[in-house]
Amino acid sequence: MNIAILIFDRLTALDAVGPYEVLSRLPGAKVTFVAERLGPKRTDTGQLALIADATIAEFPSPDILVVPGGHGRVDLMNDGLVHEWLRAAHETSTWTTSVCTGSLVLAGAGLLEGKRATSHWLALDELAQFGAEPISQRVVFDGKVVTAAGVSAGIDMALSLAARIAGEQAAQAIQLSIEYDPRPPFDVGSPDKAPAEIIRQVHAYARSQAHKHPFG
Amino acid sequence: MNIAILIFDRLTALDAVGPYEVLSRLPGAKVTFVAERLGPKRTDTGQLALIADATIAEFPSPDILVVPGGHGRVDLMNDGLVHEWLRAAHETSTWTTSVCTGSLVLAGAGLLEGKRATSHWLALDELAQFGAEPISQRVVFDGKVVTAAGVSAGIDMALSLAARIAGEQAAQAIQLSIEYDPRPPFDVGSPDKAPAEIIRQVHAYARSQAHKHPFG
Repeated sequence: MNIAILIFDRLTALDAVGPYEVLSRLPGAKVTFVAERLGPKRTDTGQLALIADATIAEFPSPDILVVPGGHGRVDLMNDGLVHEWLRAAHETSTWTTSVCTGSLVLAGAGLLEGKRATSHWLALDELAQFGAEPISQRVVFDGKVVTAAGVSAGIDMALSLAARIAGEQAAQAIQLSIEYDPRPPFDVGSPDKAPAEIIRQVHAYARSQAHKHPFG
Repeated sequence: MNIAILIFDRLTALDAVGPYEVLSRLPGAKVTFVAERLGPKRTDTGQLALIADATIAEFPSPDILVVPGGHGRVDLMNDGLVHEWLRAAHETSTWTTSVCTGSLVLAGAGLLEGKRATSHWLALDELAQFGAEPISQRVVFDGKVVTAAGVSAGIDMALSLAARIAGEQAAQAIQLSIEYDPRPPFDVGSPDKAPAEIIRQVHAYARSQAHKHPFG
């Protein structure tokens, strides 16, 4: 089972590493970090680099496709090699997935038209502009297309996917092996739970930092 | 505020990237991935490489020190440059932290003697051998030493730490910005919740894969 995780400059690391940590533990899984060009890709903070070990051209038909988000996704919104690759890979994939604003890249490539999909809560409106039906939910399955909400939601997405692929027992063993028994210190992880003041802060932060360290 | 995350070959990526994603969003934070030697460090699966941008020698006194785990931590259990660096850095750090089996490295360097600490649930017994008091808890604070349980627990640890450093509002804004409203598909993320059969599977898996893809 070949799993390709698309990376690019100014991605949000956890968008990619959450699903990687889960899916790489599936029996027979081989995860490859791919990019338009080989080599290091710096994250949106500039403070970490992940290496792309293969080009997208070398990986025309992964079984599972994962597209993370991050502010760098703005460079992937125009038609070009990445969109062509996504469309071709989607034709033969078993699952086509995204985390956070990665869904905007799928949408930009024309893969979410008429589909129920999610994204980072700050990006749901933009998703609608591409003909997708934005759903405010942590993980959304629509056929073989699976989209996750912001950043950390990729872990939940990957565990749900692992259960569909390898069965509940296998997914549960992965969950226990990464000790995923979350205890967030606050109950403010989504905009319907967070106080207005915190939501305002995140909006302001996203606007001010968009060029260097956005919401993801 | 200088934050050093120690990386090494065969680390577990999420151990490092969870705290990175949270702590890098703190006002004034500068995260640097450090290692004994510069360059790419392959994760325990061999399927991802993170780049160390500085050597530990270049970072003698970070404000915050983060030590992730992974099977590669076995190479850091003997006294040597890394232990010397940890002991020296700990003298001046504001916070000394670990995720997963990273606590065994801190313990090996002599920093957890008599301290309450946690680790991956599979590693709690080993922690006791170094004179630490193993605590089966997701995040354990003992003075300025903060240890987290397995892999995904680094996110919870970093959010708790963010609240202590920058206040609850700032930590809540980070939690909302990474949309950390976890919805694990199963309630099996810790050994006191998981069925015996799943626990047996993870034990067997850890034993069989220890040389290439261990529990973290």
